Amino acid sequence: MFYSDLTLKTSIRTIPVKTASAHYPVYVGRGLFAEIPRRTRLTRSGRRVFVLTSPEIWALWGEQFAAAFPDAPAVLFLPVGERFKRLAQVERLAGELVAAGADRSSLLIAFGGGIVGDLGGFLAAIYMRGIEYIQVPTTLLAQVDSSVGGKTGVNLTAGKNLIGSFHHPSAVFADIDTLQTLPERELRAGLFESIKAGIIRDAMLFRFMEHNSETILARDAAALERVITASIRMKAGVVGIDERESGLRMILNFGHTFGHAIEAATGYRRLLHGEAIAWGMLAALQIALARETAGPDQAERIERTILAYGPLPLFRATADKLLEAAGHDKKNRAGRRRFVLPKGIGDAVVVEDVTDEEMENAARWVLEKARE
Amino acid sequence: MFYSDLTLKTSIRTIPVKTASAHYPVYVGRGLFAEIPRRTRLTRSGRRVFVLTSPEIWALWGEQFAAAFPDAPAVLFLPVGERFKRLAQVERLAGELVAAGADRSSLLIAFGGGIVGDLGGFLAAIYMRGIEYIQVPTTLLAQVDSSVGGKTGVNLTAGKNLIGSFHHPSAVFADIDTLQTLPERELRAGLFESIKAGIIRDAMLFRFMEHNSETILARDAAALERVITASIRMKAGVVGIDERESGLRMILNFGHTFGHAIEAATGYRRLLHGEAIAWGMLAALQIALARETAGPDQAERIERTILAYGPLPLFRATADKLLEAAGHDKKNRAGRRRFVLPKGIGDAVVVEDVTDEEMENAARWVLEKARE
Repeated sequence: MFYSDLTLKTSIRTIPVKTASAHYPVYVGRGLFAEIPRRTRLTRSGRRVFVLTSPEIWALWGEQFAAAFPDAPAVLFLPVGERFKRLAQVERLAGELVAAGADRSSLLIAFGGGIVGDLGGFLAAIYMRGIEYIQVPTTLLAQVDSSVGGKTGVNLTAGKNLIGSFHHPSAVFADIDTLQTLPERELRAGLFESIKAGIIRDAMLFRFMEHNSETILARDAAALERVITASIRMKAGVVGIDERESGLRMILNFGHTFGHAIEAATGYRRLLHGEAIAWGMLAALQIALARETAGPDQAERIERTILAYGPLPLFRATADKLLEAAGHDKKNRAGRRRFVLPKGIGDAVVVEDVTDEEMENAARWVLEKARE
Repeated sequence: MFYSDLTLKTSIRTIPVKTASAHYPVYVGRGLFAEIPRRTRLTRSGRRVFVLTSPEIWALWGEQFAAAFPDAPAVLFLPVGERFKRLAQVERLAGELVAAGADRSSLLIAFGGGIVGDLGGFLAAIYMRGIEYIQVPTTLLAQVDSSVGGKTGVNLTAGKNLIGSFHHPSAVFADIDTLQTLPERELRAGLFESIKAGIIRDAMLFRFMEHNSETILARDAAALERVITASIRMKAGVVGIDERESGLRMILNFGHTFGHAIEAATGYRRLLHGEAIAWGMLAALQIALARETAGPDQAERIERTILAYGPLPLFRATADKLLEAAGHDKKNRAGRRRFVLPKGIGDAVVVEDVTDEEMENAARWVLEKARE
């Protein structure tokens, strides 16, 4: 039937995010730029639109992006790199917004990867005590993870994302087309977060990724759409239940205790975030195995699937440095160490009684495995 | 009666603030430091307390303050001055919090004037995406205005408070004793905000201040308590109805359009905030007079009362500079200029149709009046 065919071809999936403080749609599909003006309230009279992006993304997609808007939006740039995810850049960009006439009714669009999204969301959260923003994530990691859930922020010298706000976008547009220009390594790094989604909450997603790594890595649009939609649904579901990470949301940190520690111990330079999380999941898996929250077969399947989306870059660090960095992880509460362990495949549990010895064993295991 | 006498002597007034997102008490009285541990949840096990203060306030009151706590709180310092109300200081202090082991369950106490309160509240708002804080304001301005209502923030080069968050304290302790060490000029500057409260919403408060300037300026504790309590009640009432300044809360900006412009045009150095607001109210009054939202008698009473709490420092600026700064004021919405005018005494109105000519006339009037 002609009508269904057309619907199928141009289908846009809409995933609602419903939390205590916000309610907004995440759109997943192709050719989404053109949808932005229609699906957001850009027609309000006198309303100004500002785009925060990276020079690289704008060079690839800027022309097409700008063409979607009736009036060309003002463009602000953030250089690429974790070292620019700092308050100094927020201050510079806020100054540029003032100079360009942005007021409380202006809209900011964060168009780029996770750093643009996190910093852009934070800029929107604190500019004139908060303006509206939307996310247009262009990396897989940003699409499946950082653009959904309202966490925004920047880094301190002492650690990542130690400064930030909860500030939800009013919409997210995850355009699969933009993934075609994503470097191979970043695609793989993002897929680790989707594997995480499968391990902690969606056994079907895990199985799909377990059995279709080649199709997914070949960027088949239908396969990517399935992975992205399932990952976002998982995150939206968790965030809807626990917006402020007082309970369930903590399971999203699976792999993050050691992942953050590995990033810190390697100076945030050697590994992409998703790669560090992959190593962190493997480290956490050792504790899960010893505690039997996951059986040997399940652990083997998880490890094999993670490695199928590799290679994981090797690195060197000392166990002391890794453990010290893990101790500073902000997920701790009043000195207690919270740790996420997989419970088989498709479920996870947060425990508070991981011992120093278990931490040391996991650290040593991962350092041995990652040795160059 | 003995019991009543005792109650009267040690009485602490409690003003509830109830907004859509928060509900907390403001305590007004004497000897309040000792009440802090009991009236906040400091007994939670493992909970850390951090105090942000200025070296000056700590030198005067630190010993007494620290003695109120079962365990000495860690102390962080912010130098005095509007030029330190910046993101660079927020970043430094956040780094010190990390180094001192502050986590998401820690409590920050902002103990000082308006800058300590605004920056401290903002630090609490964005440290690890938000920790609990309480306000212990030590200046009159901070007690009657900035510590209540949840507005926090820092300055940009382009203007004051252009970066910030809405983040309510979990309690405010306005200790009248601390006003005994407040410099005379700061006391007067704070009283202008109370006059503002009277003009826009509390005719009884205005009359009390109109007829008791000598007693109030002599720091009579009962008179100060009455002024402070009425001012806070007024603000709590307005903020309870309109937390995010989408309507009624805008009346609190009476005097602020020109007040902010005068501060900006004089480089934030020559005038205290309250003094600039006093000039700003006088300027706005000229527009109210011409539009007859206030009659000549009312305008005369307002002007006389403001000047009774003077002297107001003189200053020089050009009309162009003042008008340009007034145009950048963040209270504008999508290019429209919102302006607060007194409606007689005890009421105010927000208008959007103030003309360039009216602005120019008011600017010229105030510049003439303030000429050194």
